[in-house]
Amino acid sequence: MSGRRVARTDARMADGRDLFYFDDSGPTREVLPDTRDLPTVQQGSTMRFDVLTGEWVTIAAHRMDRTFLPPADHCPLCPTRPGHEPSEVPAPDYDVVVFENRFPSFASDAPDVPGEVDGDPLWPQRPAAGRCEVVLFTSDHDSSFSALPVSRVRTVIEAWADRTAELSRLPGVEQVFPFENRGTEIGVTLDHPHGQIYAYPFVTPRTSQLLTRAEAHRRNTGRDLMGDVLDAERKAGTRVVLDGEHWTAFVPAAARWPVEAHLVPHRAVPDIVALDDAERDELAVMYRDLLHRLEAYFGADADAPPYISGWHQAPVHSGRDLTRLHLQLFSLRRAPGKLKYLAGSESGMGAWVNDAAPERIAQRLRDAGPP
Amino acid sequence: MSGRRVARTDARMADGRDLFYFDDSGPTREVLPDTRDLPTVQQGSTMRFDVLTGEWVTIAAHRMDRTFLPPADHCPLCPTRPGHEPSEVPAPDYDVVVFENRFPSFASDAPDVPGEVDGDPLWPQRPAAGRCEVVLFTSDHDSSFSALPVSRVRTVIEAWADRTAELSRLPGVEQVFPFENRGTEIGVTLDHPHGQIYAYPFVTPRTSQLLTRAEAHRRNTGRDLMGDVLDAERKAGTRVVLDGEHWTAFVPAAARWPVEAHLVPHRAVPDIVALDDAERDELAVMYRDLLHRLEAYFGADADAPPYISGWHQAPVHSGRDLTRLHLQLFSLRRAPGKLKYLAGSESGMGAWVNDAAPERIAQRLRDAGPP
Repeated sequence: MSGRRVARTDARMADGRDLFYFDDSGPTREVLPDTRDLPTVQQGSTMRFDVLTGEWVTIAAHRMDRTFLPPADHCPLCPTRPGHEPSEVPAPDYDVVVFENRFPSFASDAPDVPGEVDGDPLWPQRPAAGRCEVVLFTSDHDSSFSALPVSRVRTVIEAWADRTAELSRLPGVEQVFPFENRGTEIGVTLDHPHGQIYAYPFVTPRTSQLLTRAEAHRRNTGRDLMGDVLDAERKAGTRVVLDGEHWTAFVPAAARWPVEAHLVPHRAVPDIVALDDAERDELAVMYRDLLHRLEAYFGADADAPPYISGWHQAPVHSGRDLTRLHLQLFSLRRAPGKLKYLAGSESGMGAWVNDAAPERIAQRLRDAGPP
Repeated sequence: MSGRRVARTDARMADGRDLFYFDDSGPTREVLPDTRDLPTVQQGSTMRFDVLTGEWVTIAAHRMDRTFLPPADHCPLCPTRPGHEPSEVPAPDYDVVVFENRFPSFASDAPDVPGEVDGDPLWPQRPAAGRCEVVLFTSDHDSSFSALPVSRVRTVIEAWADRTAELSRLPGVEQVFPFENRGTEIGVTLDHPHGQIYAYPFVTPRTSQLLTRAEAHRRNTGRDLMGDVLDAERKAGTRVVLDGEHWTAFVPAAARWPVEAHLVPHRAVPDIVALDDAERDELAVMYRDLLHRLEAYFGADADAPPYISGWHQAPVHSGRDLTRLHLQLFSLRRAPGKLKYLAGSESGMGAWVNDAAPERIAQRLRDAGPP
């Protein structure tokens, strides 16, 4: 299979937002008009520099009013069909769709703000320039990413690659982050299977930390930190969940979450764009397998757990040879009905306490696979 | 009022754990025996070095089985009275009590572990040495910190100071963190009003970050970062909630949480121990006032919101002239029935998006005060 069979068709929504169809099936896409009468998108985000931590915090007060768990026949992510009110997608069906978020945390035309809060140099302030996109994994409202056929997962990978490449070229964008939040327990406000892509105007704190560590490791050893971690995990084997030709999935030795796995390519690539066809093909199979194991983790009787899945990609303009693309998949569920909360130690001090041993998590993920 | 009226009485629990009574009322405390037949405390925590971030993560697998919301007549934090099964406190009443946690994340006799996970130098590992204590704010199961009289808040402050001083002297302890998690929405497993104190064997990630920033500020300006922030907040005024003689409460300019306030002393002190009587007296009044405002924040009809309140103290052995004691109080509630979740951007990338403007939070906290 190859990504070349995916056709992208560009469209524009009633309020001017971009929408992209990524089709892997059916005849040539006919673009239908978005007939809705939509107000202009609200883009009021600003970024403030937190002088105590050296990190940018985004203030997006306009997002308070975003859509919250609408009834299924009002789902804004379903196709627009007879009996369903016009949604974000003016088409009777689709395979994979990406469009600009109507309630973006970052936007290309974020309004100007004074360069400092209250005119004080302690508090630099900037427009939250960037872009937020929504990725629809399927037109089936009641499905899930893990239920997609491998061929459709492959199309999502093409969409991620396409969007990463294009968003990386936008002026001011420093990092592109495709991710999925799944489950109302972690605040997902729309049931329909979807992910998001944030194009940040800064290198995120987590990535900055990785870069600092990887740089020190390179200086001390001449080697690649993530490559050394991958080698060490494969050698130890105690935390490996899946070992493929191009990818390995393992539970990190210092896992922070009750369930956590990293999916790392064997080749040092900075982002999804750099993956070749063979790597993308295997990724589609292995990522789906990993999601199935996570869903089976708490036993056949338990609901599928909430999860967060995020692609750590190298920044656009720096450290591209220092950090390697990897997926971080984790769940906050400790047991059915019990979540891990980030309370005083984690939220106040950044000091993590995990009640689950990484080797035990890995064993359970291995056991949760097909017999 | 002075702290000298608080009497500390030391006792030992059936399994050897320390227990301290801090009494501000009644006759001399008579120590009664703990008659329970308790198993030895489980202390199986280890710390693993996260090579990707440079932070220690604590693995506390034994804590999975800790007590979870017991019925009120089995509350382990209530006094031991007729009709109530023997609790953690073998006394018919108490004012404030501190004792060693039965399910500690850090313990002084943490078992030895190999120095590296799987024998690989990438993954240093240490026993999670340190200490975790529980602070009971009142013997009244159905009360709350905010409902304490000022004199009792003052006693809690004495207890925090006493424990901070003593825990700071324990070998290997690098930082002492008194905090309160309040509300089942954030995973609190016992209703009885209580807080905790963690004595960490490392400088926490948040504090390390503050130290790095404060050091750079000192180098560049010769001044104290937190002092400059305090001065700037008082000068701007837009985010100030309470302005006292010795303390100011304000919403930080780059607030991360839907409701957040910092309570900062006007004098540069490293920890609670260093506060003088006048500062402790005003703190008792102002902290209580701040909690009342938080509770009234969402209106008279709303339940009291869940919150996390933590004391950022200077590390025991480093940077004591660089970081200033301050309280961080925050809630995850966005609106009644709606929490802020740390999803992909925050949990995956450390990039925070706040839906609430800091100036608006401050205005609402000011308005939530007594008329």
